[in-house]
Amino acid sequence: MLNVALGQIETIPGRPDLNTENMLTMIQQARSMGAEIIVFPEMVVPGYFLGDLWEQPSFLKDCEEFGQLIIANSLDICIMFGNVAVDWNKHNDDGRVRKYNAFFTAYKGKLLGNDNFPYPFRIKTLHPNYREFDDTRHFCSLRKLATELNVTIETLLQPVNIDLLSGSLSVGCILCEDGWSDDYFVKPIATIHKNYPVDLFINISSSPYTLGKNNKRNRVFSKQARETKVPLIYVNTTGIQNNGKTVYTFDGSSTVYNHDGEIINYCEPFCSEIKLIQLDCKSKTTFYPPVCPPNDQSISSIYQALHYGIDRFTKSVGIKKVVIGISGGIDSALAAALYVKILGAENVLLVNMPSIYNSQTTKDLAHKLAQNLGCLYTIIPIQEAVNYTIEQITTSPITNLATSDTFHLSVSSFVAENIQARDRSSRILAGVAAAFGGVFTCNANKTELSVGYSTLYGDQAGFFAALADLWKHQVYELAAYMNSNIFTREVIPQETIDIVPSAELSFEQAIDEGKGDPLIYPYHDYLLRSFMEYWNKATPEDILQWYINETLEEKLGCSPGIVNKIFATPLDFVEDLEKWWRLYTGMAIAKRIQAPPILAISRRAYGFDHREAQNGPYFTANYLRLKNQLLSVNSPYVP
Amino acid sequence: MLNVALGQIETIPGRPDLNTENMLTMIQQARSMGAEIIVFPEMVVPGYFLGDLWEQPSFLKDCEEFGQLIIANSLDICIMFGNVAVDWNKHNDDGRVRKYNAFFTAYKGKLLGNDNFPYPFRIKTLHPNYREFDDTRHFCSLRKLATELNVTIETLLQPVNIDLLSGSLSVGCILCEDGWSDDYFVKPIATIHKNYPVDLFINISSSPYTLGKNNKRNRVFSKQARETKVPLIYVNTTGIQNNGKTVYTFDGSSTVYNHDGEIINYCEPFCSEIKLIQLDCKSKTTFYPPVCPPNDQSISSIYQALHYGIDRFTKSVGIKKVVIGISGGIDSALAAALYVKILGAENVLLVNMPSIYNSQTTKDLAHKLAQNLGCLYTIIPIQEAVNYTIEQITTSPITNLATSDTFHLSVSSFVAENIQARDRSSRILAGVAAAFGGVFTCNANKTELSVGYSTLYGDQAGFFAALADLWKHQVYELAAYMNSNIFTREVIPQETIDIVPSAELSFEQAIDEGKGDPLIYPYHDYLLRSFMEYWNKATPEDILQWYINETLEEKLGCSPGIVNKIFATPLDFVEDLEKWWRLYTGMAIAKRIQAPPILAISRRAYGFDHREAQNGPYFTANYLRLKNQLLSVNSPYVP
Repeated sequence: MLNVALGQIETIPGRPDLNTENMLTMIQQARSMGAEIIVFPEMVVPGYFLGDLWEQPSFLKDCEEFGQLIIANSLDICIMFGNVAVDWNKHNDDGRVRKYNAFFTAYKGKLLGNDNFPYPFRIKTLHPNYREFDDTRHFCSLRKLATELNVTIETLLQPVNIDLLSGSLSVGCILCEDGWSDDYFVKPIATIHKNYPVDLFINISSSPYTLGKNNKRNRVFSKQARETKVPLIYVNTTGIQNNGKTVYTFDGSSTVYNHDGEIINYCEPFCSEIKLIQLDCKSKTTFYPPVCPPNDQSISSIYQALHYGIDRFTKSVGIKKVVIGISGGIDSALAAALYVKILGAENVLLVNMPSIYNSQTTKDLAHKLAQNLGCLYTIIPIQEAVNYTIEQITTSPITNLATSDTFHLSVSSFVAENIQARDRSSRILAGVAAAFGGVFTCNANKTELSVGYSTLYGDQAGFFAALADLWKHQVYELAAYMNSNIFTREVIPQETIDIVPSAELSFEQAIDEGKGDPLIYPYHDYLLRSFMEYWNKATPEDILQWYINETLEEKLGCSPGIVNKIFATPLDFVEDLEKWWRLYTGMAIAKRIQAPPILAISRRAYGFDHREAQNGPYFTANYLRLKNQLLSVNSPYVP
Repeated sequence: MLNVALGQIETIPGRPDLNTENMLTMIQQARSMGAEIIVFPEMVVPGYFLGDLWEQPSFLKDCEEFGQLIIANSLDICIMFGNVAVDWNKHNDDGRVRKYNAFFTAYKGKLLGNDNFPYPFRIKTLHPNYREFDDTRHFCSLRKLATELNVTIETLLQPVNIDLLSGSLSVGCILCEDGWSDDYFVKPIATIHKNYPVDLFINISSSPYTLGKNNKRNRVFSKQARETKVPLIYVNTTGIQNNGKTVYTFDGSSTVYNHDGEIINYCEPFCSEIKLIQLDCKSKTTFYPPVCPPNDQSISSIYQALHYGIDRFTKSVGIKKVVIGISGGIDSALAAALYVKILGAENVLLVNMPSIYNSQTTKDLAHKLAQNLGCLYTIIPIQEAVNYTIEQITTSPITNLATSDTFHLSVSSFVAENIQARDRSSRILAGVAAAFGGVFTCNANKTELSVGYSTLYGDQAGFFAALADLWKHQVYELAAYMNSNIFTREVIPQETIDIVPSAELSFEQAIDEGKGDPLIYPYHDYLLRSFMEYWNKATPEDILQWYINETLEEKLGCSPGIVNKIFATPLDFVEDLEKWWRLYTGMAIAKRIQAPPILAISRRAYGFDHREAQNGPYFTANYLRLKNQLLSVNSPYVP
């Protein structure tokens, strides 16, 4: 019988000192629980998303030094953990010192595993190189090592043998992506299992939360255990890590699969905890009935990730107080509700900043929201300052110093709209936040970020864009969920959910007249999602083809019939498509470059996860042909 | 005798349509010049830095379609060019369709090379995976293909044989990084040369400009030609490409090396041109005397890259007019001189925005600069608006809606400094720029960007940060160079170069009293450079070790003796080091996430080139030991 402790610890990126201290505490707990083995996540000593910190040799030495403290602590307990491993005598392809993303097994004060491997640790075979992952930039994979040593991958993929008091154990030690081998031609688990006897697979991971990912992992990993008839322990980290522009939560959700692929235990998501389990790897006996982990494709999972992400991010940057500009609309209301829940009402200052364009309706809703939340509230009107700015811009004479001619500028209504937005954020909120001893939030959602429907240094500004990976329909869903499930009362006023969404920057956007945003969210949310989140990204060519084939709504996942309800003619459809595509690939990219850090929730978040160049809009040759064919039905066109 | 045309074309990223059109024009030119072969750069059809555009199957098909147009044009001339190649029956490790960074050789309307290779094209062997490069994310390398096919790399690294009218030619076709193999264990050129007869090596590249890179390339590539005794033609692209946050210029500088490794011809940097050369690859005869390409480790090279980068970037985003806030200081003066040179004085509007803290000296210098440049000029004071903002913030009552208590905020002098900076950029410049029909510039240099010595939505804002990869000492050097070599008169006032650099945001920064920035540029420029640009990044641990060893000035490259001149005691030294390290790894990262796009000049630019996570400052265990040892000399310390 084997007693294994799952060390689902919170990794603090870039802090080997603190991580080691926390690990030593948890190791002591494991010891007192009677564990023979404790398993920690991938890269638990240094953290995983560190940018180019891996290029600092002194940091690498530091990770080695703290790793030694862990190893020295393994006299009476086997400690399995992830760390960077450095071979100071070799170099990577970039010429810098050789680094591995490594799985260490320490027991009796020594590292195990070099009886059948060139190093006393195991290294990652499959390096993810999509979304936010950057493993290939810094680490040498087992695949590359095999080529370099001129041996087969099979030779290197051998289990680690541990002589425990309870008997010998042959462990297939794998790291994160090694368990997600479907698309790779190397299959680490199948390869180890085929060639060597294995009692137990252990997958140590540093796997960020993504809506729906755990459901998929449970399918994939259950299958691996079932097919190999070997139990599998998955230990993932908690905490948050970031790549600058994109902030990821790590939910842990460490899980134990028995040899039938059944889930027999798991750790709670977003919770640092140690869990002891008993396994009889030899007899393939299950001591536990199968259990059902939480479904993570749900609004409650989104709420949990958001709550955790905001909580940890504010703590990590030392923020205790926030200022939120509230308009009476849905995005700022949801942000206010979330921050109040996390930081406490007394640390959240809501500021309503009306101009002549703001309706009494939304001003009242802003006040009502603040009242419902019981937080700090103030009203700072912007009209006088906006008028003064426009006056300064239009009355300051501009001199051409080559000719001595002078002239004046004029301010269009579009220019005046952006002046209002910047006045609110850069003049009022930034100043109020600094005086309040805090920061101000960016309440942008993913739909407006996609098309740049926001003002740079205006409503796009802020210290953190916590809602920027939620489509507008998810913002509504979450607002309703917070009222019903979190506050269990109407905190976000129902009217805020019901009114037409509007920026209220001109009389053209008067909400009491039903005028609002140019985005028709029940369609554009899904259109933009297909450009951005689809595994094979859609472009106008695909969209038009689907429109022509009458499969568009099905392909996008929006309501049947909606497309023809919105667009009277194919020309209307095409003009709308091109308009948003131009914005999505044009001005919106320029704005996203200067956007605040974004909290990732979906399968694809803006920033480091979805890399983009500011190259301007493009329409493929086939799009132009399809368009011409389609529109020539009405107005004949000769290609 | 072989007539080869070097097609040093400007690649427009993401525009296969325009690139193909331009290539067809150049092919026609080559034909009329009597060329048998024309060689275009790597990825000349799609462009190279496209973010995740490679995940759009419709874009890939589009690139194939335009590639076919080029191939069809090869009836009477051999066309060698780079494009993405797609194997629709295979997938990459991420599960998406298989893509190669490919070298196509088209002749008589057909592709050559599949007599000794699985595809009728060659693919890149070495994928750069450092700095700004992302090849491994999207493309399958020859190394991976060899493993997949279970053949040796040698089998796949074979030349392409072309039966030209002038005789048969065996060409070693390689792509960019394949020629920079020093740090890789696969050496494509040496491998091809060892195993097969080769008449000529052709390296097609998409290699961004980096200060000093051409000097190095000429050493490396000359050696390759000399050692193999095979002439080598290097064809690189021109234009600009970006990864969002970081904008790269491509200088071309295509070069021909004879079999002795001598440079016998080259294209001018930053210039789209076709150049015909004659080679007798069989007899190893040189028809041309060696020539000496320009030294690119010079201030004139920096100027050329900046000029080209600003020119192309403004054109690519459709900007014809800019507004520049000028303070009388050096950074904004340099920016003004550059933009006037590029856009014309009539399209540059300089705005001086004095507060009570601005001296008559700098106000006069701002006017003098505008006068010297003969551009548009206006003065828009900020004091009234700043006073009004502070008044609004401090007089608006804040109500705690849970208790009905009210209170007021107060504004410290530090908060007031940032209010001024944001007033200038977000209130005035952004509004003026929109009214003027243009954008406003960010004039930040690399030193201030490194430590966040700027205000978010204030002086850090703008559409483009053209100077943000220049250390302060390079800003001064370039200002002097523009006066002496570009304008050949004192356009940037000498006093602007001579006065103490200052933000003038408080009386503590009064320049007439010699008070200014807290940065001591002749030291901090070099300290920060060691954190950021060194191949093995320095940290306080290294710095302190060098300080203790008395090798610091040598390691940093700053003036001998300067360290002891600045710091009276080791404690002063340590406090300064920790202060700037904390900023560099703390607040400055938060600011850089929201910085404008940065024009890359150096070997390491902020943004996609230097990836960073917002994790806060860290000091290694060894740093703390060194510090304690050092400081315990004065105040005894027990570890």
